[in-house]
Amino acid sequence: MNLLNDIASDHPQAVSFAAGRPYEEFFRVEQLHDYLGTFVTHLTEVVGLTDEEARRTVFQYGRTKGVIHDLVARYLEIDEGITVDPDAVVVTVGSQEAMFLTLRSLRVSPQDVVLAVTPTYFGLTGAARLLDMPVLDVGDGDGGLDLVDLEHQVAAARARGQRPRALYLVPDFSNPTGVSLDLATRTALLDLAADLDLLIIEDNPYGLFHADPGTRPPTLKALDTRRQVVYVGSFAKTGLPGARVGFVVADQPVVRDGRTAGTLAEQLSLIKSNVTLNTSPVAQAVIGGKLLRHGCSMLAANKREIEVYRANLRRMLAGLTARFGATGSVTWNTPAGGFFVVLTVPFTVDDRSLHRSARDHGVIWTPMHHFHTGMTSSHQIRLSFSLLDDASIDEGLDRLTAFVTAEAQAFGHSA
Amino acid sequence: MNLLNDIASDHPQAVSFAAGRPYEEFFRVEQLHDYLGTFVTHLTEVVGLTDEEARRTVFQYGRTKGVIHDLVARYLEIDEGITVDPDAVVVTVGSQEAMFLTLRSLRVSPQDVVLAVTPTYFGLTGAARLLDMPVLDVGDGDGGLDLVDLEHQVAAARARGQRPRALYLVPDFSNPTGVSLDLATRTALLDLAADLDLLIIEDNPYGLFHADPGTRPPTLKALDTRRQVVYVGSFAKTGLPGARVGFVVADQPVVRDGRTAGTLAEQLSLIKSNVTLNTSPVAQAVIGGKLLRHGCSMLAANKREIEVYRANLRRMLAGLTARFGATGSVTWNTPAGGFFVVLTVPFTVDDRSLHRSARDHGVIWTPMHHFHTGMTSSHQIRLSFSLLDDASIDEGLDRLTAFVTAEAQAFGHSA
Repeated sequence: MNLLNDIASDHPQAVSFAAGRPYEEFFRVEQLHDYLGTFVTHLTEVVGLTDEEARRTVFQYGRTKGVIHDLVARYLEIDEGITVDPDAVVVTVGSQEAMFLTLRSLRVSPQDVVLAVTPTYFGLTGAARLLDMPVLDVGDGDGGLDLVDLEHQVAAARARGQRPRALYLVPDFSNPTGVSLDLATRTALLDLAADLDLLIIEDNPYGLFHADPGTRPPTLKALDTRRQVVYVGSFAKTGLPGARVGFVVADQPVVRDGRTAGTLAEQLSLIKSNVTLNTSPVAQAVIGGKLLRHGCSMLAANKREIEVYRANLRRMLAGLTARFGATGSVTWNTPAGGFFVVLTVPFTVDDRSLHRSARDHGVIWTPMHHFHTGMTSSHQIRLSFSLLDDASIDEGLDRLTAFVTAEAQAFGHSA
Repeated sequence: MNLLNDIASDHPQAVSFAAGRPYEEFFRVEQLHDYLGTFVTHLTEVVGLTDEEARRTVFQYGRTKGVIHDLVARYLEIDEGITVDPDAVVVTVGSQEAMFLTLRSLRVSPQDVVLAVTPTYFGLTGAARLLDMPVLDVGDGDGGLDLVDLEHQVAAARARGQRPRALYLVPDFSNPTGVSLDLATRTALLDLAADLDLLIIEDNPYGLFHADPGTRPPTLKALDTRRQVVYVGSFAKTGLPGARVGFVVADQPVVRDGRTAGTLAEQLSLIKSNVTLNTSPVAQAVIGGKLLRHGCSMLAANKREIEVYRANLRRMLAGLTARFGATGSVTWNTPAGGFFVVLTVPFTVDDRSLHRSARDHGVIWTPMHHFHTGMTSSHQIRLSFSLLDDASIDEGLDRLTAFVTAEAQAFGHSA
């Protein structure tokens, strides 16, 4: 979001709860060399390529669907319990391109629409806008998804002559709400989507960041026995953002003129060849090397980061309780992991409030209305805690308290 | 092209004149480490970033318009005599994304169309097809561009109610024909485009590969005094394909509701944020390091490669003369550089001919009809010589001669 970048650069001393970036204190330039070297060695020693073939794999134009698809499939098996044919994996320039390609493939005519659980990550709505594809909101209800509303929206769209193709959602630690679907809702969603003949686009950038991994429910794709789920993955949070490597698993058979015409992955690959041609094999090699260094487990690779996120979430929730627990008028949710907490305040929040918060109180956050199409204000704030250390969290929450107190007084509410 | 990949993998022993890939014998894995290290050192020692800031530049999400825009601007100044504000540069995932973003920005309504000199690189027609944007053919005449036809096509489109937005062309060693525009045609094109109120999309992947650099005319962008030219650049041939780094220079002011609303580069950046978000900073660092290693000159960086391309072109032309010079019925053009020569044969060439050539004669090439919308055959063949050594060229031309002889006999022509 350009607004947030502008405000951050205007107020360099502000504590930022805005950026949804992974923790960066463990980054080392040497890792890039190590990962690249590890991947090239893997190509020669395990895959059995000659030195020349290995060099060609990394240096030349590559396979459109990617060169680390087999490692991605192993990672999905190990970390997510998802079993897929590596040929159904398309490695993309981040999950953004994965969403873009998927929407483009589903948008065959102007009647095609996509549904999205609201509030919605703006990468999805932005991609749909570029494709002139309407996005229909589905309520998030109490548990992260209102299934009754989903059924209603699909029926209403069909009555208008639209063709609902898919439901987009982030079932694990949603961006922006941090909420996760429970197992019963996941199962019910898969059944309902089958009844409604609707694909599900499952976007899962935060799934590995559970504060208590033992209680994490399976992904929709792991539960998918009917090939209903197009799974969008990202290595921006678990690998490194600067590689810009994501992927999509699209094992759906494509039927054209009554006959099967390959898989959706092959169709996405054709579209990709006209958008970016390939995902940089150099960047893929970096992610491939990181996977190989940790037995294809990003859970293992992110042990230290996961501990930071868990501690930060705990500190955020305790800090909010200490500061706002007695007010009654300021509330927040309690996610089980991820990068985000949502704060609800007794006054209207818009972009001007954010400017005041940055200027007068030195704290930045994301106004929630940016995740709702057509809204310009709300009573909610997204707080991201992934990039911060203890002192910044404490200082940031103190400043946030000062902001909330000032706004509540100015607008005649008690906080 | 999947067809060519399939044929190549079915016939691994065939000599391939098909792949438009850069020469790869000088690739070394150590170069990746060297380039990455050089770029990071540049960030700390020249730009003045702290180690932490330098790491963040390479590892984290980055500026949507890129992190090597200043180096790209210096390269354009040094190698191409093009002076641009670095802020007008958008670093992209190869030139393919640059074309895609540019077309998307120009396609505001279904009336918007793009013109392209035919035969046309299929990356352009593929991107336009994804955007439901019609591509109107403009003849290439004798010198690479038929200006009378351009004027005629624009008038005809306007009479139909269409809105021609831009002309796409590769003025230097066009893909597929290898032909370059002379200076007079370049100047005349810029004047005519101004009269017609038409942007020019100049795609220049091969410009540095002139067999006699002293005689190379300036690019259209270097001659552009009216900001008519959107310049698409690629580091796939001069840097390394596996980085997937290209760029677009878009210094045009954008007018909306009668007021200037930033530059086209800013608009492309907004679109990019919904397609790929960023171009991998790791991949940009590799290209940035290669630029820095050679004083921001890709001409300097490619000294050895340019010598190979020059020698290969000479050997191709001499080899064609030796084999077909006396036939009269087999002809070819004589490009001044680049990667491609076009052969014209006295029989029809289609994908089945290519299959026969691969199977019976062990030689692969690109049927020219793939560069013409709607055509399924022609009398022409694109021969690429960028990836080959002397022995392969000689052997490939011998096999090609056998193929041409056999086809000419089978179809009743003399060759």
